[in-house]
Amino acid sequence: MRDLLPAEVELRDQAASTILGVYRRHGFRRVETPAVESIALLTRSEGGENEKLVFKILKRGERLDLGRAAGVDDLVDLGLRFDLTVPLARYYAANHGQLPQPLKAVQIGPVWRAERPQKGRFRQFTQCDIDILGVASEVAEVDLIVATLEALLALGLEGPRVRINDRRILTAIARGCGFAEERHGQVFVTLDKLDKVGLAGVRAELAATGHDLQAVERLLGLLADFGGEGNGKVGLVRARLGSDLDAVVAEALDRIIDAVAQESGGRYAIAFDPSLVRGMGYYTGPIFEVAHGGYGSSIAGGGRYDRMIGKLLGRDVPATGFSIGFERIVDILKEREGLQPSGQERIALLVPDGGDLPEAVAAARRLREAGCIVSIEPRRRRLGRQLGELRQWGYTQFAVLDEGGDLELRPIAAGDPGGAGDAERSRDGGRRSEE
Amino acid sequence: MRDLLPAEVELRDQAASTILGVYRRHGFRRVETPAVESIALLTRSEGGENEKLVFKILKRGERLDLGRAAGVDDLVDLGLRFDLTVPLARYYAANHGQLPQPLKAVQIGPVWRAERPQKGRFRQFTQCDIDILGVASEVAEVDLIVATLEALLALGLEGPRVRINDRRILTAIARGCGFAEERHGQVFVTLDKLDKVGLAGVRAELAATGHDLQAVERLLGLLADFGGEGNGKVGLVRARLGSDLDAVVAEALDRIIDAVAQESGGRYAIAFDPSLVRGMGYYTGPIFEVAHGGYGSSIAGGGRYDRMIGKLLGRDVPATGFSIGFERIVDILKEREGLQPSGQERIALLVPDGGDLPEAVAAARRLREAGCIVSIEPRRRRLGRQLGELRQWGYTQFAVLDEGGDLELRPIAAGDPGGAGDAERSRDGGRRSEE
Repeated sequence: MRDLLPAEVELRDQAASTILGVYRRHGFRRVETPAVESIALLTRSEGGENEKLVFKILKRGERLDLGRAAGVDDLVDLGLRFDLTVPLARYYAANHGQLPQPLKAVQIGPVWRAERPQKGRFRQFTQCDIDILGVASEVAEVDLIVATLEALLALGLEGPRVRINDRRILTAIARGCGFAEERHGQVFVTLDKLDKVGLAGVRAELAATGHDLQAVERLLGLLADFGGEGNGKVGLVRARLGSDLDAVVAEALDRIIDAVAQESGGRYAIAFDPSLVRGMGYYTGPIFEVAHGGYGSSIAGGGRYDRMIGKLLGRDVPATGFSIGFERIVDILKEREGLQPSGQERIALLVPDGGDLPEAVAAARRLREAGCIVSIEPRRRRLGRQLGELRQWGYTQFAVLDEGGDLELRPIAAGDPGGAGDAERSRDGGRRSEE
Repeated sequence: MRDLLPAEVELRDQAASTILGVYRRHGFRRVETPAVESIALLTRSEGGENEKLVFKILKRGERLDLGRAAGVDDLVDLGLRFDLTVPLARYYAANHGQLPQPLKAVQIGPVWRAERPQKGRFRQFTQCDIDILGVASEVAEVDLIVATLEALLALGLEGPRVRINDRRILTAIARGCGFAEERHGQVFVTLDKLDKVGLAGVRAELAATGHDLQAVERLLGLLADFGGEGNGKVGLVRARLGSDLDAVVAEALDRIIDAVAQESGGRYAIAFDPSLVRGMGYYTGPIFEVAHGGYGSSIAGGGRYDRMIGKLLGRDVPATGFSIGFERIVDILKEREGLQPSGQERIALLVPDGGDLPEAVAAARRLREAGCIVSIEPRRRRLGRQLGELRQWGYTQFAVLDEGGDLELRPIAAGDPGGAGDAERSRDGGRRSEE
């Protein structure tokens, strides 16, 4: 886990505020769930691999009985959330009577995964999700996808590209090729690696794990026909799958692609990709991912999960969501823009030892009322060094009160900290090269 | 722990944004530390009672050896932070080379305490702290206090009242009265209850815990003379304590009170209170609390802790901080204003089954460009009921596309959901009384 320095927090705050602003204009409302959930919820196998990465919290007080604990399960009752989707399903099940119908939720907050530390991966990181609960039609997918693409564009990430598929198409493909029903999940896990290992790699892995070889060859044939990705191929998939695929599924997918493509005006792209899988087992319908520039991995992804809430609530509630990889976005913005101080005027009002504090406080207030950021700080003996440091932290001016109590405001010069004035500053300014 | 519904999140977001805006204008910059810290840091006795309330996180992988664990300490390596001060000290010790000097930090975020659930107390709650690290002079206290009072006023909490004292005055009082040096802490814990139990209660508790009875009577005499609180009494305390109190301490306190009182212009009050203790053992200098209206407990509090960072960094760094009780503030705002939807225009653009989705998306975009919040939602069969629900969630208008593709925008009437129109809506409107 890591500490965030002020400049990074400011960049993150700006990014979050931009994203939230776009989502709010699309009618999404922010909800918040606790960071901590019951361990039972977190390990009821909605989270796939992520469940193994839960930080588990020790029971407290009398409920903790070390002597009688047979294993970890007896020691823990809570855990840190590993995503925002499982907690949202629990939230909806617990609070649906007090929530708008449909619920268009936006969440931004930290999640935790006990992964081995590696470059660019953190054990606490921020996710930003939107979800629409209570809408079965593809209107929800179009809303999610357009809002997310607009948010990415508002961040300056130009030309995002959406790949879209439907879990039911994957199932129809697997069924049509003749894979055993109970091994479809395994086929999808391998297919998910197509980007990395290519057709030959997929063939090798499926063969090695003992799938029916005829089924494998049929799948490879289909994938070669589809040629990876491309608009307008829903019809081809439909023709090849015949009655294995419900016509309604393909029609809805066409409507999503059509609406997003028409709205794009060339600002983003959407394409059907029958090899898109996405890892989570809970998806039931359309699934989608966004790529940007040359980044290999996706910067956002989501899909429909119509049966997750039912397991908690007792009746199914249609649901679909889209998650922005906030940390990846911040990395892209950092590479692109660096961490610049914001453009606002920052003034340091310097008060000498025993100076007129009430007058300084009043002068600072007046400058703030005029729209400046003003920090009252003790004037150090080595003013030149102090000004150099202030400039480094984004201050553009400094102010002192003269003997009559009037405010003197001076620029902190970029080139020469001592340039503006008195002997002391000149002397300190001369020393700066040693520091 | 609790779920936050959209209206509450919006109120909290507005409050946080108001507070952060004021602090930013005072030159504070936001920093972020992880929610999880090492258990060693959290239990090194800077946190007083709060240390007993740490949520502890189980070790993972090979490091967890249930068979060999002799106790809880062998099972855990991390914990959830119980405040924002201890993590900030660790943050400063770890990152000071990359941080502005002085560091004027603002933090807002969740903390966790494993307390028994009770009304108004939550096991996850938000704190909002400002801290100034690196300034030994009272300029820092004045800055913290004025900024916090301005933040409270900006929230609409009028007439906040600050009580201020100095830990060194408490020590001088205890020493002057003749309490044994090693039992000062205990005396302060009892004195802290003065508000609740009165002078007689303090006398009884001190006598019962075996303190020197002459010392107890001297303390009671002093407290009676000071008369609780009141401006201008620093001089009296000084006269009574004589050489037990460093003159510099009283002078600095006078300067703080004077500067804050002069800046107030009657908008807030500050008074010296020699009986103010504040619980945390780490305070070393001025300590302060804010009361508002008739609320018995404080809504903000803080103080100087010049020796905490030294224990982590190896050299002392002067530090002082002020924490707003964010949850209490939100409670006050809720009681006062209720949870009102914001004033912004909210429009629901309703799309019928199989309707022209690309056209609807484009129309929604145009309305957003004109400054509205627009949510695309499927039109339900029972439109009257749908409009009633939309109104309940803050929507003021709804829109549909007519057969020519033109947008029709209509108000959602407050009185009669079916009033604006067609037979279907009238029918559903008539049914609403059953729902």
